Amino acid sequence: MPSEYVPGLEGIVAAQTEISLVDGANGRLVYRGYVIADLAENMSFEEVAHLFWFGSLPTRAELDGLAAQLSGSRLLTNAALTALTALPKDSDPMDVLRSIVSVQGVTPHLEKPTLGHAIHATASFPTVLAAFHRLRQGLEPVKPRADLGHAANYLYMLNGKEAAPELVHALNTYLVLLADHGMNASTFTARVIASTDSDLASCLVGAIGALKGPAHGGAPSAVLEQLEQIGTPENAEHWMREARKHKERFMGFGHRVYRTYDPRARILKAMCERLNPKFYALASKVEETALTILHEEHPERPQATNVEFYSAGVLQAIGLPKDLFPPTFAVSRVAGWSAHVLEQAGHNRLIRPQSEYIGPEPRKPVPLAERG
Amino acid sequence: MPSEYVPGLEGIVAAQTEISLVDGANGRLVYRGYVIADLAENMSFEEVAHLFWFGSLPTRAELDGLAAQLSGSRLLTNAALTALTALPKDSDPMDVLRSIVSVQGVTPHLEKPTLGHAIHATASFPTVLAAFHRLRQGLEPVKPRADLGHAANYLYMLNGKEAAPELVHALNTYLVLLADHGMNASTFTARVIASTDSDLASCLVGAIGALKGPAHGGAPSAVLEQLEQIGTPENAEHWMREARKHKERFMGFGHRVYRTYDPRARILKAMCERLNPKFYALASKVEETALTILHEEHPERPQATNVEFYSAGVLQAIGLPKDLFPPTFAVSRVAGWSAHVLEQAGHNRLIRPQSEYIGPEPRKPVPLAERG
Repeated sequence: MPSEYVPGLEGIVAAQTEISLVDGANGRLVYRGYVIADLAENMSFEEVAHLFWFGSLPTRAELDGLAAQLSGSRLLTNAALTALTALPKDSDPMDVLRSIVSVQGVTPHLEKPTLGHAIHATASFPTVLAAFHRLRQGLEPVKPRADLGHAANYLYMLNGKEAAPELVHALNTYLVLLADHGMNASTFTARVIASTDSDLASCLVGAIGALKGPAHGGAPSAVLEQLEQIGTPENAEHWMREARKHKERFMGFGHRVYRTYDPRARILKAMCERLNPKFYALASKVEETALTILHEEHPERPQATNVEFYSAGVLQAIGLPKDLFPPTFAVSRVAGWSAHVLEQAGHNRLIRPQSEYIGPEPRKPVPLAERG
Repeated sequence: MPSEYVPGLEGIVAAQTEISLVDGANGRLVYRGYVIADLAENMSFEEVAHLFWFGSLPTRAELDGLAAQLSGSRLLTNAALTALTALPKDSDPMDVLRSIVSVQGVTPHLEKPTLGHAIHATASFPTVLAAFHRLRQGLEPVKPRADLGHAANYLYMLNGKEAAPELVHALNTYLVLLADHGMNASTFTARVIASTDSDLASCLVGAIGALKGPAHGGAPSAVLEQLEQIGTPENAEHWMREARKHKERFMGFGHRVYRTYDPRARILKAMCERLNPKFYALASKVEETALTILHEEHPERPQATNVEFYSAGVLQAIGLPKDLFPPTFAVSRVAGWSAHVLEQAGHNRLIRPQSEYIGPEPRKPVPLAERG
């Protein structure tokens, strides 16, 4: 017998995973047995991707091998380049990523997801975004460099020159922090698609589509827009209390899982203070005010600064335009998505829930001629 | 507290819907209060799409209005045409559909799903597939005709000439039969993506990716391939008993929901007998043998011929190549997908289940230099 309807599937365990643990009660995020705070500042994105895909942190030789594979997988196919060039310059970069990842994943026959596919797809995300960002400015795409790591290559291809080491480090930390997060909606989408025995590109394209939704990954640029409207720390309290009178949401707050401070937000906040003091001065005041107001309204609810809030300041400091924030989230999360797809593909069990029919009772249709 | 892990989300009600009821116990499929057998032979696909989208069967004037909107939405964007032309000729048509629907759905800013988007997307699916099928044969794509309905246009654009009325009728019936089916994996995928407040194209692209999986929509061509291997009715019993010794699956049997004969399979079977007698002679013998063997092995399980089995014979009779079977399923199902997206988008609640972490306990990472 089917259960009762579970709105949002809240509290339902839809998968078992070795990849990450979101320990909301204790404010911990764990990647395969490592607490995020221990990984964020000292590991490369490539090391974390290796951890996800192969189950262990790499030795130096393994890391060099993975770097070489990534390096050999960064270029786009001819079809992908042609499609990219054909897209309007004002396209939403999330749509561009969704489309070009799909084109890049076209094959003659269905292929089961492999580690090679995961590496190839992950390598190509920055290339797609950087090439589009160049093209929309009327510039030639910049080819990746074999001597640069993943974060450095992304900035190099975007800007046509090497980025400062502290910005590469900041982007790398961001990529590590966002790379996986339990059964979020995009990862769940990827696993549902994987459960049909589909290919990796299909899973990733669906995940990108889910991440595009503002209720999931689409709000980091909205954080920046709200901060721009607030303008100065002095204006925060007045602006925000007025906003609440009109039921306006504070962007960058609230999470269904954490009952305490999001550990990623803590690390990103410290990075913002260092890299983006102007943003930090405003944002930390806005955060303080938001938490005060939210606590007044709902004292029973926990603290709720989410990962998007300080992400915005970090990505701004790195020099990314606002509309590349959501697809840069995807540049990170694809490591987790692909690991989840490989894990799900091993399970070989279709994810197929039920629905409850609440439509009209069966009756005979009236023929077209008699419908007036 | 999270529940226990529910493999495949079996029995979990993930959505309430007015669109369709899969009444497995009684072998009934209901679209918004109409039993499928009452719709299949007498309604056009456009009438059923109207029923899904607007909640009622159309009057003549409403149907004419919808037909005009569909007719005005069949052409591809320039970007979609360029991308289509760039894809390799040996591409899997499901990948082509996934990619071109994505490109066709590229916009400058996020747009909430609307009825207009649903109509536009549904109109374009046959154009994408027909244009690709023409291009891969070295032929020019054929423009749709305003005086032809949806099924007729698809065949016209594929073949460059009008199809016989009985084949148009058969395709129309197929499109009606497959247009929705409760919370199947692709519809569920579309609803998960919609729950993030993403756009319709993102939902459809994810759904196509899920439908591509052989555990969901990818097996109708496999039915044909297995029948080709069996060859003749006389060979069925011997071939099939040998196949079971090697644990080979019978293609086109088994469904998680129906406890009695799938009502769509019943209608398709009758169509096969009429349209494709050669297929029918072999397939009906193979079906009988499969059901006998499956019953011997598991007498407790219900009859299990699924919709794919006789779909293969109908689509073959219509003249579609095997690799267009799965995307033609999508040509039908997009009506249901888009209706579900519109329904889900009204709910405004993120579908975000939990996962159970089964990885290693947290420990300190060993620095790279010490990993040997």
